Amino acid sequence: VAIAGFGMVGSAVAKILTQQEYAQLFRITHVLNRRIAEKRVAWIPEDVIWTEAFEEVLASDVDIVVELIGGLTPAGDWVKRALAAGKSVVTANKQLIAAEGLELSALARAHRAHLAFGASVAGGIPVLSGLQGGLAGDRLAKVSGILNGTCNYILTRVESEGVSFAQALAEAQRAGFAEADPSSDVDGADARAKIVILARVALRAHIEPEEVVCRSIRPISAADFCYAHELGCTIRQIASAAVHDNVLHTSVQPMLVGRNSPYARVDGAQNLVVSTGCFGGETSFSGTGAGGGPTAVAVVSDLVAIAGSEQVPATSAPPALRRFTVSADTLAAHYTRFLVNDRPGILAKITAVFAEHGMNVDAVLQLPGFSKQALPFAITVEPCSQLILAEALHQLRALEFMIEPPLCMPFLERTA
Amino acid sequence: VAIAGFGMVGSAVAKILTQQEYAQLFRITHVLNRRIAEKRVAWIPEDVIWTEAFEEVLASDVDIVVELIGGLTPAGDWVKRALAAGKSVVTANKQLIAAEGLELSALARAHRAHLAFGASVAGGIPVLSGLQGGLAGDRLAKVSGILNGTCNYILTRVESEGVSFAQALAEAQRAGFAEADPSSDVDGADARAKIVILARVALRAHIEPEEVVCRSIRPISAADFCYAHELGCTIRQIASAAVHDNVLHTSVQPMLVGRNSPYARVDGAQNLVVSTGCFGGETSFSGTGAGGGPTAVAVVSDLVAIAGSEQVPATSAPPALRRFTVSADTLAAHYTRFLVNDRPGILAKITAVFAEHGMNVDAVLQLPGFSKQALPFAITVEPCSQLILAEALHQLRALEFMIEPPLCMPFLERTA
Repeated sequence: VAIAGFGMVGSAVAKILTQQEYAQLFRITHVLNRRIAEKRVAWIPEDVIWTEAFEEVLASDVDIVVELIGGLTPAGDWVKRALAAGKSVVTANKQLIAAEGLELSALARAHRAHLAFGASVAGGIPVLSGLQGGLAGDRLAKVSGILNGTCNYILTRVESEGVSFAQALAEAQRAGFAEADPSSDVDGADARAKIVILARVALRAHIEPEEVVCRSIRPISAADFCYAHELGCTIRQIASAAVHDNVLHTSVQPMLVGRNSPYARVDGAQNLVVSTGCFGGETSFSGTGAGGGPTAVAVVSDLVAIAGSEQVPATSAPPALRRFTVSADTLAAHYTRFLVNDRPGILAKITAVFAEHGMNVDAVLQLPGFSKQALPFAITVEPCSQLILAEALHQLRALEFMIEPPLCMPFLERTA
Repeated sequence: VAIAGFGMVGSAVAKILTQQEYAQLFRITHVLNRRIAEKRVAWIPEDVIWTEAFEEVLASDVDIVVELIGGLTPAGDWVKRALAAGKSVVTANKQLIAAEGLELSALARAHRAHLAFGASVAGGIPVLSGLQGGLAGDRLAKVSGILNGTCNYILTRVESEGVSFAQALAEAQRAGFAEADPSSDVDGADARAKIVILARVALRAHIEPEEVVCRSIRPISAADFCYAHELGCTIRQIASAAVHDNVLHTSVQPMLVGRNSPYARVDGAQNLVVSTGCFGGETSFSGTGAGGGPTAVAVVSDLVAIAGSEQVPATSAPPALRRFTVSADTLAAHYTRFLVNDRPGILAKITAVFAEHGMNVDAVLQLPGFSKQALPFAITVEPCSQLILAEALHQLRALEFMIEPPLCMPFLERTA
């Protein structure tokens, strides 16, 4: 086994593989990283080769390459060359698998090598193997979850401490839960890659990452949690994909979820995946979705599976994936929140525009204690198309009393 | 595929297998049941043979026998004869797998057949495949859960409706959630078989069902829920197995669990399994643990896995299981409840006996509204050995004011 990328996950994988119980199954041959001299540790067996050159790994007789460098370049190129050389690959690279997974799987089959990516979604939670193996006998119609621990950490901090999004983000960055550039987490690209992989495995749906609409959690404020609580809800970044009448509804966005729902109970950086099957009903998987240890467990589990399996038969082709019309629309009850410079007539104006678009107001919430010059208040509307609602909000956005663009979030449990 | 046992699960399996997507993979050859004439249904393909004779199945060229008749006899004999004839077996029979699983697996290997039992624990929740595959890279130290839907249904009814155990049981029997003889469910034998299988798969522990101590949920009353709520807890039947210093601690018994814990949130007949690994931390699996549909999903998932795998290599031997000292003791804080004919001095007498046994009282709870002639009150004690506590309670039991034997339950979260 060669380990490409010796960061938190890579060193955790090496730690597990150097345990006695794996000594007979695996031998680490190479550790590959940039500036390898700085990476050397004493607890790795002496015969392991430390290198910065992928070519050296490729030219060796190593059986399996563990790719943990992440991103599309150069990881994609390395994975392709390893597979083409007949080496099996285990990867935690969700962006690569989401974007090029089908092509890479075909390449692996053509060279009778294994490609395993159990670590690419929800770290240590065995959700891909559960969906692929244990639920193979069901016909799954929906998969959804909390797939980004950073967002969940930030949202739970805004909720519990009443701080602003910016403060919670800065705190998450200090605590090592968020990166210097947090956009992949908070704007949804990370969860998007994971829902694309889940949709492929659970729903057998072929979908490109770009087809999944992402809405950022950046506009969410402590006031939104006050109003959500009034509605018996809290706010979570939810990634979901559901097939309904041959249309695939999928999105990554903040949603209101019931405070008693399993989604509300996901703490800090934990992850949750819920699948819904025609025969077996709802099944949930939860646990630690990221971090060195749990992700390393998923990588080693893939290694164990490869070690215990035969060579890939030349003939094996996977069941074909299905192409769906992808809808970015969510038919659901919605929460909308406005930040306004208060004056008489605002509510009349907003509700008139809603009425014009055929939307029924369900509740108006305005809690005391906010400044009149920057007053947040919320309106919930009965189930409607999110796209039509967005049109109405776009029209309202231009009004002079609006301090920032209106925010809109669907209620997860009141989604059609 | 031959289906032995055409009840709720068997007919659900047949329904799934007659769906179009499985037509190329599987063909049902036989349906086997007692009084087969009464079982015939029109939606099964005409070429399927309906029979009461297992010998007919055995003599045919069927590849896989699905055993859904349950119990040790004659199911054990049939499974052995099928495996010995080189036929693979898929079973949902937890009692058989708990008692004879190792022997049957060895028999299957010797005849290069598959033996799969994913449906034997937690029905449609892919927990065995998750533990076996997705968490293979972790070293698991503990597995616990709510494994019996009938107990969970009864306990949640006693809790929410304030009815007696007997009333809730009768209601569960009317609703079809409990059998005419409920002892296997409420006294723990059902959950015991499942924890034995989970301990084997997750902890690689070899343990006989008889080694697991079971305590019944029968003595639990609505008053116990009142006191549990006062303590921020509720009551659930918990099956658990944990390895600590080479001792396997395992039991099936009612326990107090925090009202915010995942155990408290398991509704009605749902199941939950939580595993704890050295590297990956806690992982939870939840969903519908019983019933025709979910159990059939698990059976069909096993069928799909067998269809997609090679013949069992003659050489493959599973990693050896470990033998542990099994402890029936639980070192934990405990809840004790007494039902007494009230008079002065009772508390002094009980606390004196507790003190003699070296146990510290944590809290005394006596809610108003109960009859003085049959007064339930509770005492919680700081962490102690459950066996020593049982001795103290045995001594107290003889006292003339005791109306029924004292009840004792550990706090799950305050277990050492």
